[in-house]
Amino acid sequence: MTERGSYDPETHQVMTFHDAVPAFLDGTDTPRAYLERCLEVIADKEPAIQAFVSTNLDGARKAADASSARYKSGGPLSGIDGLPIGVKDLLETKDMPTQMGCDAFIGNFPKRDNAAVWALREAGAVVLCKTVTAELGGSTPGGPTVNPFNADCTPGGSSSGSGAAIGAGMLPAAIGTQVGGSIIRPAAYCANIALKPTQGGINRGERQATSMSTHGVHAGSIEDMWRTAIEIAKRAGGDRGCLGLFGPDAPPAAYKPERLIVLEGDGWAVTDDSSKSGFETLLEKLCATGVEILRRGDHPYVDALERSVEGAGEVCGSITGWENRWAQRNMVNEHPNGISERLKLRLAKAEAMTPDDYRAMLQRREAAQRCHESVAPFADAVIGFSCPGPAPLWLGDIPGEPQAPRPTGDAICNTPSSMLFAPVVTMPLLAVNGMPVGVQVMGQQHSDARMTAIARWILETLTPVVVN
Amino acid sequence: MTERGSYDPETHQVMTFHDAVPAFLDGTDTPRAYLERCLEVIADKEPAIQAFVSTNLDGARKAADASSARYKSGGPLSGIDGLPIGVKDLLETKDMPTQMGCDAFIGNFPKRDNAAVWALREAGAVVLCKTVTAELGGSTPGGPTVNPFNADCTPGGSSSGSGAAIGAGMLPAAIGTQVGGSIIRPAAYCANIALKPTQGGINRGERQATSMSTHGVHAGSIEDMWRTAIEIAKRAGGDRGCLGLFGPDAPPAAYKPERLIVLEGDGWAVTDDSSKSGFETLLEKLCATGVEILRRGDHPYVDALERSVEGAGEVCGSITGWENRWAQRNMVNEHPNGISERLKLRLAKAEAMTPDDYRAMLQRREAAQRCHESVAPFADAVIGFSCPGPAPLWLGDIPGEPQAPRPTGDAICNTPSSMLFAPVVTMPLLAVNGMPVGVQVMGQQHSDARMTAIARWILETLTPVVVN
Repeated sequence: MTERGSYDPETHQVMTFHDAVPAFLDGTDTPRAYLERCLEVIADKEPAIQAFVSTNLDGARKAADASSARYKSGGPLSGIDGLPIGVKDLLETKDMPTQMGCDAFIGNFPKRDNAAVWALREAGAVVLCKTVTAELGGSTPGGPTVNPFNADCTPGGSSSGSGAAIGAGMLPAAIGTQVGGSIIRPAAYCANIALKPTQGGINRGERQATSMSTHGVHAGSIEDMWRTAIEIAKRAGGDRGCLGLFGPDAPPAAYKPERLIVLEGDGWAVTDDSSKSGFETLLEKLCATGVEILRRGDHPYVDALERSVEGAGEVCGSITGWENRWAQRNMVNEHPNGISERLKLRLAKAEAMTPDDYRAMLQRREAAQRCHESVAPFADAVIGFSCPGPAPLWLGDIPGEPQAPRPTGDAICNTPSSMLFAPVVTMPLLAVNGMPVGVQVMGQQHSDARMTAIARWILETLTPVVVN
Repeated sequence: MTERGSYDPETHQVMTFHDAVPAFLDGTDTPRAYLERCLEVIADKEPAIQAFVSTNLDGARKAADASSARYKSGGPLSGIDGLPIGVKDLLETKDMPTQMGCDAFIGNFPKRDNAAVWALREAGAVVLCKTVTAELGGSTPGGPTVNPFNADCTPGGSSSGSGAAIGAGMLPAAIGTQVGGSIIRPAAYCANIALKPTQGGINRGERQATSMSTHGVHAGSIEDMWRTAIEIAKRAGGDRGCLGLFGPDAPPAAYKPERLIVLEGDGWAVTDDSSKSGFETLLEKLCATGVEILRRGDHPYVDALERSVEGAGEVCGSITGWENRWAQRNMVNEHPNGISERLKLRLAKAEAMTPDDYRAMLQRREAAQRCHESVAPFADAVIGFSCPGPAPLWLGDIPGEPQAPRPTGDAICNTPSSMLFAPVVTMPLLAVNGMPVGVQVMGQQHSDARMTAIARWILETLTPVVVN
């Protein structure tokens, strides 16, 4: 157990945007003024948090002014017109460098917008900054970002800066990306609400290297989370060959589930008892509202689902390693010292795979998806930990000592949903020793709006459980 | 009908590599000597054909020498060790520019190898040159390449240079890519043998923008075609999330089909009578060997398949247009004069689509794939034209006059297999008015090796039909 953190769900302040819009519409507030308030918080907190790798203040102010003018005459472009947003530094932005937390990309500055960034601008959002990412979206910290609730702890990764910026109340929304657990894990460690959509739900633009990565949204509120996601998808669509995110423009109304399945997964065994006791209390509260809970042993399909995601971390890691190996080999050839030793080890492992090794992993992924489909008729969603307890301590690699295998925390609670291509919404429902621990609902593919509605119901119905 | 071409299947010379390997192994020939013979043919023919956009002679000679040394001591890396090959100029090559037949990419020179190029070098192949592509793989000619059998006719596109280089006997193999008809159409117009694999069969590397493009192989022989494809797939694998190309290292043995389905598709109505009469003669020859032929009206599933691919061109064009629109809009923003008017029109059309328009097209594609699956139990393959008659005349756009909609020929015979994600092998089985017309066999997904075996049987069993 690390030293105590400062997270208190009762007093914790987040930044929200959706509730500012009425004042933009009636002229008593403007997106420019909202941006300036946002910048004040950032000036106060960013020196300690270090969530941002670059910022375009001039561009953001111009965009906010243009948004203010639209509210004044003619009306906003969308429900997120004027929303200040941070973009994970893996996505290309035409006005800021894209350095991917990786030495090989220092100074990289393609003058293009990722599809999602392009859509955000089309929707009137104010693209303010690039947020720190772990190296190339992997597990080596790509910047100095700290956890907002204990500076000795990781903010999680790979969307470290997006998670920390939301947790610190510096932004109402930020874009993250996930292959294994890179959206939901930092969101869970930093008390974010976040959506990891159905695989392919949001156009990844130039980031098409892998078969199981998604763009998603970190936010302080479920309203801003949903609106950001749907306004991107309406314009940029889903990934090529995918149906894209479905749902209404307005955040889905709260929806009470009848029955939830608890998925323990491999994460259960490594989660601390305090977090588990908090989770059990949460389940009791859910039961008290009349929601039925199914667990291991309650139904053979639940057991089959549990078995199907055993080793999900290996499946996700092997698939992604194989899919990245050619591009990473090119990169190492160009920049022999441009990537970390941790990443070089992963590359070596991937290069030892054969096509049949890869096919075997695809088959496991496919089989798990069928097992997940089979529970659809009798449960509204799956519920579980978004992270195996609070963010771990991490103060940096120590020269001469073996490197920590998971300096940004363990994705063990996230790889099942990644391999299932399933939409997930994480909620800050637990506070353990003063640190946030996220709880997630996971649904069938394309049930993103329904998961948002269920998360909304849970957030509106339950108060977070505090374990000290 | 255009003026007569010079194609005569009886005297036509192609370049083959597989039959040179025994002499490399017994020391009576070397890959370096083979390369020099290849360069002699190129010196003779390339000034007229203009299939190449760049060449790396020094690099190729070094690679051929290294290959020669391997045959001398230790043995070759693969069945294509020493094979001189051309790579379509859409794929990145670390030693030659990648200009994509597009003004916006003039001088573009990323120092990286596409996954397939990387695999070719790993297998010992000699990457000799980049071949002309239509602009960004579309329909606007991206270079001056002419048809080897009539310089006033298009070589087809978008793999114009690969098709023409093989047709002129300048190379034993070349890499092409197809979204709608960009491998099979130029191959058919230029008397190539070519494989458009199952969607995802070969790792596309950085070229992941669309859900229905494939890398494939143009060759002078079915042996070199297969070996090139499988040696790439063994090393680079298939596309991310796909099983990749299956099959043996050695070219599959000839396989006689019991029953073939003729797919007419939308191409039938626009194909000239001479080509059709040649095709009917070919079918008669097949019947004479005991192969059963099923056609429209013979089975309700055949009729359903025909109906499912009606409008395949629109489906392929809309899907690809939507998937490319964000990247192309970025490109136009960066280089307002960097793409052709033809491409700008396509972009405008794509930008008028909604996510639901795109989803509707995906649904049509999916439904057609189910119709194709349903014929699997009662036919070994589908047979049909690879192009709607001989390569059309095209001498260039005439300023002030409306632009030809299809200057590189019509992909109407190719879009069905593209939308079905189905493997296709095209064979030079017809000569019409001195111009080659290809005939293709198409199989179920992942039956690439079987299609190669059937094509081999047809090529070994039938002599091409000449219609004058």
